[in-house]
Amino acid sequence: MQPFDHRSTIPEPAGLRTAYAGSLNETRVGEVVQICGWVNRIREHGEHLVFVDVRDHTGVVQCVVPRSENLHPEWVVQITGTVTERPEGTDNNQISTGQIELRDPSVRVLAEAEPIPFSLDERIELDEATRLRYRYVDLRRSRMQRNLRLRSVVNSAIRRSMEEQGFTEIETPLLWTPTPEGAREFLVPSRTQPQNFYVLPQSPQIAKQLLMVAGFDRYYQIARCLRDEDLRADRQFEFTQLDLEASFVTQHDIHRFISHAIIAVVQAVSPGTTVDIDTITWHDAMNRYGSDKPDRRFGAELHDVTAIFADTTVKALTATSVQAMVAPLPLSRARLDELVDRAKTLGAKGLLWLRVEETDGQLSLNSPVSKFLTPNEQEQLITTLGAQPGDTILMVADEWEKAVTVLGQIRLGLGKQLTSDDVLDFFWVIDFPLFEGLDEFGKPVSAHHPFTMPNEDDFALLDTDPLSVRSQSYDLVLNGWELGSGSIRIHTSSIQSKIFEVLGIDEETARSRFGFLLDAFKYGAPPHGGFAFGIDRLSALLAGEDNIRELIAFPKTQSGSDLMTGAPKQVDQEILNQLGLRPAARSKD
Amino acid sequence: MQPFDHRSTIPEPAGLRTAYAGSLNETRVGEVVQICGWVNRIREHGEHLVFVDVRDHTGVVQCVVPRSENLHPEWVVQITGTVTERPEGTDNNQISTGQIELRDPSVRVLAEAEPIPFSLDERIELDEATRLRYRYVDLRRSRMQRNLRLRSVVNSAIRRSMEEQGFTEIETPLLWTPTPEGAREFLVPSRTQPQNFYVLPQSPQIAKQLLMVAGFDRYYQIARCLRDEDLRADRQFEFTQLDLEASFVTQHDIHRFISHAIIAVVQAVSPGTTVDIDTITWHDAMNRYGSDKPDRRFGAELHDVTAIFADTTVKALTATSVQAMVAPLPLSRARLDELVDRAKTLGAKGLLWLRVEETDGQLSLNSPVSKFLTPNEQEQLITTLGAQPGDTILMVADEWEKAVTVLGQIRLGLGKQLTSDDVLDFFWVIDFPLFEGLDEFGKPVSAHHPFTMPNEDDFALLDTDPLSVRSQSYDLVLNGWELGSGSIRIHTSSIQSKIFEVLGIDEETARSRFGFLLDAFKYGAPPHGGFAFGIDRLSALLAGEDNIRELIAFPKTQSGSDLMTGAPKQVDQEILNQLGLRPAARSKD
Repeated sequence: MQPFDHRSTIPEPAGLRTAYAGSLNETRVGEVVQICGWVNRIREHGEHLVFVDVRDHTGVVQCVVPRSENLHPEWVVQITGTVTERPEGTDNNQISTGQIELRDPSVRVLAEAEPIPFSLDERIELDEATRLRYRYVDLRRSRMQRNLRLRSVVNSAIRRSMEEQGFTEIETPLLWTPTPEGAREFLVPSRTQPQNFYVLPQSPQIAKQLLMVAGFDRYYQIARCLRDEDLRADRQFEFTQLDLEASFVTQHDIHRFISHAIIAVVQAVSPGTTVDIDTITWHDAMNRYGSDKPDRRFGAELHDVTAIFADTTVKALTATSVQAMVAPLPLSRARLDELVDRAKTLGAKGLLWLRVEETDGQLSLNSPVSKFLTPNEQEQLITTLGAQPGDTILMVADEWEKAVTVLGQIRLGLGKQLTSDDVLDFFWVIDFPLFEGLDEFGKPVSAHHPFTMPNEDDFALLDTDPLSVRSQSYDLVLNGWELGSGSIRIHTSSIQSKIFEVLGIDEETARSRFGFLLDAFKYGAPPHGGFAFGIDRLSALLAGEDNIRELIAFPKTQSGSDLMTGAPKQVDQEILNQLGLRPAARSKD
Repeated sequence: MQPFDHRSTIPEPAGLRTAYAGSLNETRVGEVVQICGWVNRIREHGEHLVFVDVRDHTGVVQCVVPRSENLHPEWVVQITGTVTERPEGTDNNQISTGQIELRDPSVRVLAEAEPIPFSLDERIELDEATRLRYRYVDLRRSRMQRNLRLRSVVNSAIRRSMEEQGFTEIETPLLWTPTPEGAREFLVPSRTQPQNFYVLPQSPQIAKQLLMVAGFDRYYQIARCLRDEDLRADRQFEFTQLDLEASFVTQHDIHRFISHAIIAVVQAVSPGTTVDIDTITWHDAMNRYGSDKPDRRFGAELHDVTAIFADTTVKALTATSVQAMVAPLPLSRARLDELVDRAKTLGAKGLLWLRVEETDGQLSLNSPVSKFLTPNEQEQLITTLGAQPGDTILMVADEWEKAVTVLGQIRLGLGKQLTSDDVLDFFWVIDFPLFEGLDEFGKPVSAHHPFTMPNEDDFALLDTDPLSVRSQSYDLVLNGWELGSGSIRIHTSSIQSKIFEVLGIDEETARSRFGFLLDAFKYGAPPHGGFAFGIDRLSALLAGEDNIRELIAFPKTQSGSDLMTGAPKQVDQEILNQLGLRPAARSKD
């Protein structure tokens, strides 16, 4: 895809300017223009003159200014001057304004500036803490201007797509109700009702289902969500998602709605880029990539080779499932040892590796284990995998899910050397299991939430083989990142009761956890389903950024601090008094 | 204006339906369609058949259904049937589907429903508490469907306008930093840093100014704001505003940006309605209407009649300012007594009234006070006010601001009888005073916030006559409601220091209150200004609703309760422990 160019959109000038810097080029030679911006750089130009580059978000323009103006970097100026062709040989083909400069300027200093705490030069690596402390300076950098403007384009394209598809934007409350297990909810103490609390929503899930009961048919919101969780590199307390729900639809309709939005986003960010969003089942994804959010930008797929080793005497291969893949790379012994360690860390008993070598036109396997494999096993392995000289075969033997998952992780680790960043591989993963295992009481555990509709073909299995029941839930994956997930919801009491029964949730518990939603459903709930995807992550991937913080104006650190404002902070006891609270010794857990 | 019609937009059908109810009419006779929705009403139609009206948000369609289907109101159904012309004489011209009905239907019940707690009939007045408790039922009513969909159209039009004008949407944090005087801020306890707090933003004011320092040039956001204040009829803890800030602009540019958005909104809600947004100074608004957010939909303007009574002997008219207005209404003695009481409640010493009467072609004033007025005073009063027989003249004498304000309130009270709801009167109020009086130490008090830029012509008055300094702030008013306000901000330390000095704010206090903003301004702040207007109120006015709760999906009551979810609620002590908090006796104040 073409990278997003935030400078391609230039607003109509107003106020103190008659032109944006980036709009100036050789077609405007002779015009007197008034530009406003920051002094980007000052360079010598003889005894009486200096070159002053003035920057706004659309670009930089060179002004030839008397030295006596005594400007300094990051001063804010208004410059009125004549667009003039640069003297021959002094033009700069790197920038759109490189053929011209402003001459005979009148300069008005709008604000002076102290030296800024770090350079805006993109090539300089900066400490993130310093960047966040002076975020208002950091955001002046072209990269950050581009990132936040890209995000704005993403939001806009999503909204346009939603409107085209007949969705109504509805705002749901930020002050929501605590739920019994709300360990990750931010609390908001009430002042009118001391010692009572609202919570900030982790998502508008319940609210949007209620909107379906209310007959809103197609709802969307670019929703702010808050989750009080440990902040990892790719998480923030606050995140933003496209949240969508529709009635009287199947999962295919939901896929279509969301795919439409995704395609609109990609088109808006990178015009001309085409996107094709295909579908893969969870089972296929696990079998082929060992992941429910596979990175398919490279091959090296997994193969089930259990049958080949049915009669093996090698203990390490005696398992219900043997999974193999080919790394199309020469891997050093040190690297292979690392991979073995990694597989063990991931919970496998080990990782077998075999180097594929060629001697006199014959392929052979070079490995500490190869002498324990029969020639037939070796030949079948090479043939099944289509292995070539120079390849390395990697194998994990374990129960199926463990084997594919561990080998999938190994595969992913090798992927960095095999992928191109330029590809956008969007796809749907469908047919997830409804349950993700058994709890300590032997009851199935919901993979998503207990309102997820089972696949109608699998209803009969709820009693006999619940772990094989597929759900009507689905994820959207981009380049190995889960962008979002959704499901068709249960909308009738009879199916809901059945699921609660399978989960071992009694009526009282169900009522205390989901009371008002269950109440609502009594009054006629339409079949409905929805989806939500994270806009922080999507924008980051489209901007080519690893970290979502680069797409957030004022992010928090991994300890949840805002280095610019100093939040969170202590407050006066008097304020806590009004809330009926006081500080307490912190509990140990 | 034409009222908004939410039924005019019909999405492309998908999923379980091939048509929306509202799309069916005589042009589709003969088609077999599949509709989905709620049973709206069931009426008798002979021994074996019933009429079943099926409702979706686009309309209602009549289906002729076998009685044996045994449907009930609010059941959710899918009906496949043939669009058929109604038998002659049975059509209904009140609704767009009134010429047709669905015949030979196959009916699928998608969900049964218990009887709903109240009727959806618009004509029935409902208790608001019941509506809020069962909001998901209440929202099925056509009025609420229309209101929330109108709001969605408002948001959409605002965003399109902002984009057209080159504004970038940027999300600012919901978890913000406490400020020392943050009495109205909702606190959010931190779990990673127990006994420390974030606050929810009352507005993105500081953040958006930082975005200007960061060079974003034109920022907007449809921002969720939270203010922990007493809930009056027209307030909620949560509200939504268009928040906008731009650099290198004057206040006229800001007016233009916002006016563009307002015009776009009105056009979207009521196509064909034209809007003209004019400007009035604060001084004019006060002089003519006794209000800084006047309702100009009716006349009855105030007149300064101080000069007429320069030599009066009437004590009640001996004041620095005498203000008069004409009520073009006959007012009973009881009503006049009420107005006198109201004027006193508002802080005036009284209210003088004089009935204008005609005897033999001569106008005279009938009032307990008239005998104390000279014939010349009476004549001048009648002439100045252009009073007509049947009018009532009302007067308040006091210092100027009190006199105009009280009479302005009296005027407003009479306005309900004089206005038409159909008019949209938008206008700007400019040239507000920078300060709104003196504090206990004789220092001026900021009318808005201390970053508001004074009018540059009035800089010299800061030392000599601060109360007469005009600010570069401005309000947008619609039909007597202040929709929003904004200002050009101070962007240099020298002016900011001057203002702090006038306000008597020392450097230490300034730092503790506004530290990181002042820091940011050191690094080169552009001239900038902005605006914010409330979308709840604007939407309510456009929907013809008095109460913003009618435009909010899940509002809270005046005590801050969510009657549907039960929020706010108590939470486990274990959760409070993690936050380092425990319940305390509530303080008395």
